[in-house]
Amino acid sequence: MYRSLSSSPSDQDKEYVGFATLPNQVHRKSVKKGFDFTLMVAGESGLGKSTLVNSLFLTDLYKDRKLLNAEERITQTVEITKHTVDIEEKGVKLKLTIVDTPGFGDAVNNTECWKSVADYIDQQFEQYFRDESGLNRKNIQDNRVHCCLYFISPFGHGLRPLDVEFMRALHEKVNIVPILAKADTLTPIEVKKKKFKIREEIEQYGIKIYQFPDCDSDEDEEFKQQDLELKESIPFAVIGSNTVVEAKGKRVRGRLYPWGIVEVENSTHCDFIKLRNMLVRTHMQDLKDVTRETHYENYRAQCIQSMTRMVVKERNRNKLTRESGTDFPIPMVPGVAESETEKLIREKDEEVRHADRAPDSVPDREHESHQSSEQQEPSDPRDDRER
Amino acid sequence: MYRSLSSSPSDQDKEYVGFATLPNQVHRKSVKKGFDFTLMVAGESGLGKSTLVNSLFLTDLYKDRKLLNAEERITQTVEITKHTVDIEEKGVKLKLTIVDTPGFGDAVNNTECWKSVADYIDQQFEQYFRDESGLNRKNIQDNRVHCCLYFISPFGHGLRPLDVEFMRALHEKVNIVPILAKADTLTPIEVKKKKFKIREEIEQYGIKIYQFPDCDSDEDEEFKQQDLELKESIPFAVIGSNTVVEAKGKRVRGRLYPWGIVEVENSTHCDFIKLRNMLVRTHMQDLKDVTRETHYENYRAQCIQSMTRMVVKERNRNKLTRESGTDFPIPMVPGVAESETEKLIREKDEEVRHADRAPDSVPDREHESHQSSEQQEPSDPRDDRER
Repeated sequence: MYRSLSSSPSDQDKEYVGFATLPNQVHRKSVKKGFDFTLMVAGESGLGKSTLVNSLFLTDLYKDRKLLNAEERITQTVEITKHTVDIEEKGVKLKLTIVDTPGFGDAVNNTECWKSVADYIDQQFEQYFRDESGLNRKNIQDNRVHCCLYFISPFGHGLRPLDVEFMRALHEKVNIVPILAKADTLTPIEVKKKKFKIREEIEQYGIKIYQFPDCDSDEDEEFKQQDLELKESIPFAVIGSNTVVEAKGKRVRGRLYPWGIVEVENSTHCDFIKLRNMLVRTHMQDLKDVTRETHYENYRAQCIQSMTRMVVKERNRNKLTRESGTDFPIPMVPGVAESETEKLIREKDEEVRHADRAPDSVPDREHESHQSSEQQEPSDPRDDRER
Repeated sequence: MYRSLSSSPSDQDKEYVGFATLPNQVHRKSVKKGFDFTLMVAGESGLGKSTLVNSLFLTDLYKDRKLLNAEERITQTVEITKHTVDIEEKGVKLKLTIVDTPGFGDAVNNTECWKSVADYIDQQFEQYFRDESGLNRKNIQDNRVHCCLYFISPFGHGLRPLDVEFMRALHEKVNIVPILAKADTLTPIEVKKKKFKIREEIEQYGIKIYQFPDCDSDEDEEFKQQDLELKESIPFAVIGSNTVVEAKGKRVRGRLYPWGIVEVENSTHCDFIKLRNMLVRTHMQDLKDVTRETHYENYRAQCIQSMTRMVVKERNRNKLTRESGTDFPIPMVPGVAESETEKLIREKDEEVRHADRAPDSVPDREHESHQSSEQQEPSDPRDDRER
């Protein structure tokens, strides 16, 4: 449809140049190249993380996982596991990576149990930073985490301290999408109340979850309506199931109770479809873009700044002369010296202060980048590892 | 068609996850973002460069240009001019930049008159390298030249020394597409012969013009046929005209001669349509990708290598200790010392030697990257500017 060297009738139009085919050229290339997506699931065990992932992507990612008994879990430290599957659909290839955090919140003392998760995300950024700065950038493996589904227990009265701690520790590093797990234990009214409470607390604790981009004014009403519903369904109340049951004559994925059948893909029963549509069909690319343009760029800027500061200290210690400016390959290009370094830092700080007046950045993005600046202090976690 | 939160019937298919919409998400984003393309035209004046550009993009880019008289041109130095227009078509926005090289080859002594053109291209790469390595990468202006239409005179017997010199000086830096200008002075047989001669000479002088990507085996026959014709029509024999004349009842862009009308968009008269289809409708994105992935990456690698060498020399002079490895922000990350530097260079050289066995790179790309390695010697032009 979109690529052919021969000109279609409309192309014969004397006023038609043909660059309108550019999006199709991009489309075509993207299909050839294939896609990748890295999804992290976090939350205490037993909330159906694995089941949901399997339901979302209709694949069995955890064939060979071994469950730990209570004793093993008491002192268990949070380990990070990675599963990758190559799936194809209508000719579109997707390399899907699921990052799981078994044991999160399972120990008796869960102080800083989010640390290893935060470190994992930073390590992916650091690796990408090294690769992106390297000599040969041909086959860079991008393992940055594009989204984190954070599972909230349906039993807690709103958020629990651990939930708040986790999300606040990670919201500058990854797109967090809160999930209200095992919603089949809650009545519709209870779901509505809990969602409201949780949204309220997220606001109140200054947690910055993934912001859906505002839809443009030129969108049709139906789309706007659906977009609004999407925003109001946070946290997504989900029910997972990989077993197929008989419901009103047709076979559906669901859970069979004595009092009835819970249908996973019935939007009056839960938000599974809403979540899948958002995560996979409408916002997957945006999740990747925000990761690249906001979270990674913030990490990178902090990294460069702390490195620059170190170099400047180093310099002053070594009392080097201006000529040696050349040992700043990047970002300072040959012949650039300290003053330039400081200038760059000033510029960044400027940029941060004026973020709100940045002409082209989307509101919610501005917010994020502004917030992130607050982290750009020596208290930055990576400093420890660098020392 | 491709974005809507509501699921279409087919999406209800239990086996359909929905990531098949990813290319459409990309498509949609690319349209929102808009496109840019920078085209350079080179070749002696009077060959119809400006006319062709105007015909290609149906716009008047040179309203206010002033032509120089012979006297002015004798000693004229090659200057680079830039025109930018924002054009829109079917909702797709394109920021088109035309880089012109008036006066090229006009002087009496044209020794090294390609130098300023090569320098211009390098400067764009250097600027992008600085920006890409900087702290704030939000609003980077990409001025890299994506394609250079090189106009060959229809009067020369094949290529002239200046043509060879120019193309060989630039073929590692930009995608060169040779054009046989003012083809209305040649009969079909003459065109055929001249094209063959020029292709032969391009081969013989080791000039690496832009290689059309090989089309995949899965393409339909018609497409393959057209792709073959495209490759055989190098150099594109073109006739430009911005005046509309009456031909067989219908008004067409062309040139009115006593012996008949030359129709620009008549593929039996010239390759204008072929050129426009290639440049705009089918290969514009590929020209951008090759610029980014091959030409720019080669420039960047050379840059880093020469800078690294300088740093190493510097180091040895300053007799710095291992600890000071931290004054390599990038590509060497904190704590990395000389040995690492040398390792990177070795790696690059390795990679270059093994280019032919690189699993994922397209044949013609391999060729380019292999060739480029031959430039990675201190004899690299930029070294002068850096010293």
